[in-house]
Amino acid sequence: MTINMEKPYVVGMDIGGTNTVFGIVDSRGNVLSSDSIKTQQHEDIDEYVDAVCKKLIPLIQAVGGTEKIKGMGVGAPNGNFYNGTIEFAPNLPWKGVIPLAAMFEEKLGIPTALTNDANAAAIGEMTYGAARGLKDFIMITLGTGVGSGIVINGQLVYGHDGFAGELGHVIIDRNGRPCGCGRKGCLETYCSATGVARTAREFLVQSTEPSLLRNIPSEEIASKDVYDAAVKGDKLALDIFEYTGRILGEALANFIAFSSPEAIILFGGLAKSGDYIMKPIKKAIDENILKIYAGKTKLLLSQLKDADAAVLGASALGWEVKED
Amino acid sequence: MTINMEKPYVVGMDIGGTNTVFGIVDSRGNVLSSDSIKTQQHEDIDEYVDAVCKKLIPLIQAVGGTEKIKGMGVGAPNGNFYNGTIEFAPNLPWKGVIPLAAMFEEKLGIPTALTNDANAAAIGEMTYGAARGLKDFIMITLGTGVGSGIVINGQLVYGHDGFAGELGHVIIDRNGRPCGCGRKGCLETYCSATGVARTAREFLVQSTEPSLLRNIPSEEIASKDVYDAAVKGDKLALDIFEYTGRILGEALANFIAFSSPEAIILFGGLAKSGDYIMKPIKKAIDENILKIYAGKTKLLLSQLKDADAAVLGASALGWEVKED
Repeated sequence: MTINMEKPYVVGMDIGGTNTVFGIVDSRGNVLSSDSIKTQQHEDIDEYVDAVCKKLIPLIQAVGGTEKIKGMGVGAPNGNFYNGTIEFAPNLPWKGVIPLAAMFEEKLGIPTALTNDANAAAIGEMTYGAARGLKDFIMITLGTGVGSGIVINGQLVYGHDGFAGELGHVIIDRNGRPCGCGRKGCLETYCSATGVARTAREFLVQSTEPSLLRNIPSEEIASKDVYDAAVKGDKLALDIFEYTGRILGEALANFIAFSSPEAIILFGGLAKSGDYIMKPIKKAIDENILKIYAGKTKLLLSQLKDADAAVLGASALGWEVKED
Repeated sequence: MTINMEKPYVVGMDIGGTNTVFGIVDSRGNVLSSDSIKTQQHEDIDEYVDAVCKKLIPLIQAVGGTEKIKGMGVGAPNGNFYNGTIEFAPNLPWKGVIPLAAMFEEKLGIPTALTNDANAAAIGEMTYGAARGLKDFIMITLGTGVGSGIVINGQLVYGHDGFAGELGHVIIDRNGRPCGCGRKGCLETYCSATGVARTAREFLVQSTEPSLLRNIPSEEIASKDVYDAAVKGDKLALDIFEYTGRILGEALANFIAFSSPEAIILFGGLAKSGDYIMKPIKKAIDENILKIYAGKTKLLLSQLKDADAAVLGASALGWEVKED
């Protein structure tokens, strides 16, 4: 991260299926200002860029204009760092290949870089959070899906095509649950927030165990409900976390054999379920790890402040943008 | 690779459980001379180093002495690049942590680097073989075990502790075959040469299919016998390759989700079984790959000359040794 006192700020923007959040960030990771728009309300990409700029330009002006901005970082599903494009993102309104970084550069006159949301989170963690000083770590984001950002030798791993690090789509059970990607048994069908809700529905049918979760209509159960039940000592809810944590820990033990990271950092709602999920994850790593790696890789929680995490992660990429 | 015309040669040495092979290599990958000793005959490490030097020094003198040697590269099981050590290698006679690179540096006065054998193969392939010009690839060595060397952004991945890249010990079936590492279902229990022989013994018991392999005492069957039978059209032998290739292809599809490599390069006896193994591997990759990676990663065979491959691979590390 290069801090130029002439240009002390960056813009961070996180594009989600529902909301697009953006803000101005300083070199210490303070979000000075932020705003948002609804992603789905802008089916035309030009109109979407205009809508963002309409709200973003006043924020930029408030800190002294574009000459104070070092760069802009964008985190987006299916974001390709090499091309600055969003490519065939199933949950966004724009189809095909969208040259979004170039569009913002042209509109705002700010050098812009783009990557996928989990990679942005990894860079954010390295710049402002739990991964400061780490050169080898894996970021796992546990949200609606499971994402990952892999850092090796202090560099984010993009792969030859810009799409490396889809660890949520490592197949962990070839006869497992159908996944949105069209295959079966991907890690994210078990260890995402939606995976946890799916497990709850399965367990409620398979067992006759009394549970607070039986008071909720099955199709409405969310991972937050499982957490709330676990806090009250609900046996079935605790079993769901045990099951989820074991599957994630087994997968992490395999990932460690790839890059032998100093740490694995967990991010997202599920990671906040505390010991209910962390204990079974750690236990499964310990039981499944190859001996030479035993006890070496730390399991950490994200240190990015919750409300700001998405903007912060993306903004960190803004420090690394190369000016033409 | 830096070629210094004052120092136009490197030494390569490969330490195997049975043989230790070493030789002098020029910048084009020609092995100018080589020799070997039996690894197991030297239980004392000092005596082992002496025995290597006794045969290696004359080879060095024949090309003009140590002043003509840029560096020495050593490939060894459980080799740690960061420390130049061999650490707790189960199949070598020396126990604990052996500072082998330092021992050769002191004895020969040549800067020496050491890594595990699969990493050495990856560097060899990048310097002299199928990976020339590639910045992102995975080398898979199919021998008695399954090893791997991972290259990302043109750099070998060593991980935070020097032991990254044990893809032969990724668990692909949690209730699978017992592995020498003490766990169950590691990739190498299926896709190594010994794994293929194990599959042959299982298939012979499970099926009543006539097979040329039934003429060989079960415990003596080797992967070469399966190949020979396959060449003669033996149905059971072909099924064994189908089974092995499918498991390897499924695992490779998962590995691609990690680093999105431009190529996967296969090395070792089993890789030479041609279409018998390559076709099922490719089919399983195609059937199990996440859509964004489909058709992008090439499956290549090693281009290192067979007899020289071990020495060549290790020697390539000699070009990269830093002189103090």
